[in-house]
Amino acid sequence: MQLHNFNSGPSILPQEVLEKAAAAIHNFNNTGLSILEIGHRTSHFVEVVKEAQTIVKRLMDIGDDYEVLFLQGGATMQFMQVPMNLLDENGLAAICDNGVWGNKAVKEASLFGPVKVVSDTADKKHTYINKALDIPSNATYLHITTNNTVEGTQWHSYPQTSALLVGDMSSDIFCRPTNFKAFDLMYAGAQKNMGAAGVTMVVVKKEILGKTNRKIPAILDYRKHIEAGSLLNTPPVFSIYVSLLTLRWIEAQGGLAAMEKLNLAKSNLLYNTIDSLSAFHCPIAKEDRSIMNAVFFLTDASKEEAFLALCKTEGMIGVKGYRTVGGIRVSMYNALPYSSVEAFCNLMKSFAEKI
Amino acid sequence: MQLHNFNSGPSILPQEVLEKAAAAIHNFNNTGLSILEIGHRTSHFVEVVKEAQTIVKRLMDIGDDYEVLFLQGGATMQFMQVPMNLLDENGLAAICDNGVWGNKAVKEASLFGPVKVVSDTADKKHTYINKALDIPSNATYLHITTNNTVEGTQWHSYPQTSALLVGDMSSDIFCRPTNFKAFDLMYAGAQKNMGAAGVTMVVVKKEILGKTNRKIPAILDYRKHIEAGSLLNTPPVFSIYVSLLTLRWIEAQGGLAAMEKLNLAKSNLLYNTIDSLSAFHCPIAKEDRSIMNAVFFLTDASKEEAFLALCKTEGMIGVKGYRTVGGIRVSMYNALPYSSVEAFCNLMKSFAEKI
Repeated sequence: MQLHNFNSGPSILPQEVLEKAAAAIHNFNNTGLSILEIGHRTSHFVEVVKEAQTIVKRLMDIGDDYEVLFLQGGATMQFMQVPMNLLDENGLAAICDNGVWGNKAVKEASLFGPVKVVSDTADKKHTYINKALDIPSNATYLHITTNNTVEGTQWHSYPQTSALLVGDMSSDIFCRPTNFKAFDLMYAGAQKNMGAAGVTMVVVKKEILGKTNRKIPAILDYRKHIEAGSLLNTPPVFSIYVSLLTLRWIEAQGGLAAMEKLNLAKSNLLYNTIDSLSAFHCPIAKEDRSIMNAVFFLTDASKEEAFLALCKTEGMIGVKGYRTVGGIRVSMYNALPYSSVEAFCNLMKSFAEKI
Repeated sequence: MQLHNFNSGPSILPQEVLEKAAAAIHNFNNTGLSILEIGHRTSHFVEVVKEAQTIVKRLMDIGDDYEVLFLQGGATMQFMQVPMNLLDENGLAAICDNGVWGNKAVKEASLFGPVKVVSDTADKKHTYINKALDIPSNATYLHITTNNTVEGTQWHSYPQTSALLVGDMSSDIFCRPTNFKAFDLMYAGAQKNMGAAGVTMVVVKKEILGKTNRKIPAILDYRKHIEAGSLLNTPPVFSIYVSLLTLRWIEAQGGLAAMEKLNLAKSNLLYNTIDSLSAFHCPIAKEDRSIMNAVFFLTDASKEEAFLALCKTEGMIGVKGYRTVGGIRVSMYNALPYSSVEAFCNLMKSFAEKI
């Protein structure tokens, strides 16, 4: 049976990336050694890191005022590492709480200094993005989650602020060309649009660091990682290599413009199908709908179980909504082919006809 | 050419582990999906974590008073995470500084509370283990590096203390049966004896946690990871799977007794060869020599370059000493076959005859 992988992350990767990753486990770069057995300070691996950094800068169209780091711990680590590096008692973190992940960012930041929640969309179950933010003039930084994986919303243009702008881009990094330069610090767990689990990309402007008096442990100090060329200690070698393969794949497909074209085609098809069928409904404000994660429901909730069972028998993987939200969630990351969304939409139509 | 991989870490893995890891990238557990594409909360992956935890407990012969976690960030993260969880201003960390890694543990711990260095072997360039420790009676914990990867020394029996005992076992975990129960907290980066880079095992007694008043960020709080069954956030899925494969391999070989037999055979052969050849010398105190990493020198230092060049042409990988130590370092982790040490010893003999 043909499988269609709509997992929310870790998620589908390009077939080509999987093949090259598996080949490197047997023999990496003709070294005769596995990628799992090489030293991280060998020239072979240092080149992997450098090439990945170069591609990231090219895709983001950013200059040498930014540094690209490949760290560990995911967004959950960044929720505390960002304030540990940027915030102290004299500062103020302005944070948008637009769902599960933004909420965690609020909780962790509050351990390091004052926090103001400048947007809380819980009033409408996080089904929209509040763009009218009241950001205090003394805010050190504004933190946004550019795409809310769980709730299915996405910022389609970024808020203006005189504060530093920090973006958790874990679930929509490189989904389209965008103004990355609007941000002073961006981070993303790789396991959605740029590789496998186990590595977290941080892109940061050097000039914003070192402004607090806090003593920061080496492993959590962005400056230490920058000084060490992202090789402060043993990095997650294989995960970084899979990210490089994925970054190369993005460029080979035509870069971010090609990703956007594909992602719009997929998400338009899916949202149009949902809106056209009375059996389904999507509560997310149309202008804020995510092109990565579509969250929607059966109009008759009692039919949800039957629909999910049908999805399972038809090889549609990972379409059950997040446990606190329920319903259906279809994740359409870069590597998901258009044909998978077509197949899913056909299944929705055929299900809708029968009920 | 046959390669012999003496890398200090990331290092050689069993061929069987590499083959199974590559196969899982194509199709994991007959799911039709890659291990890189599966959700970390699927039953398939939850079983991976549970089986790995079970094998670790079996190999260590420890009970349910211990928890086994698979985290990220390596020993460098543990250098700060251990004191963040165990130490505060009312406590005292007693730490053995027997080399590069112990020294880093001292620096990071001092950010969280009082530290006393109870052993500093710099007087003899860290060529021995000081076993006569003066541990203050009010020490919260004693931290030792059970094997000094860079310097080539190893604790062959553990110090007695009324304080909690913490062990950085990154470079000798599971090299032999030992009294793991002597420890209250043990950690190890996987990339030497138990898998690939990208995952760090922490084994901790639950009862020692929660004794400080510090507010700990979620990702750094062992208790949060325990509550979440080591799945607090997206874990390094592939690296954990490679650790499971390696743990299974250790058991299939006959467990820690078999590892010890192999490791003693390899290290005895190598040290005996060094000691028998006047062209080489090992400055490490005999009783403290590591069975994982042998550090030694050419008696005539001017011959070192020629020897390293010969090693290179003969496929002996990773034998150059650490940059601050120099000389030769041969790492003989569990997966290194006896035949590789034989080949290396033959090369030493043939080199010694010609000079």
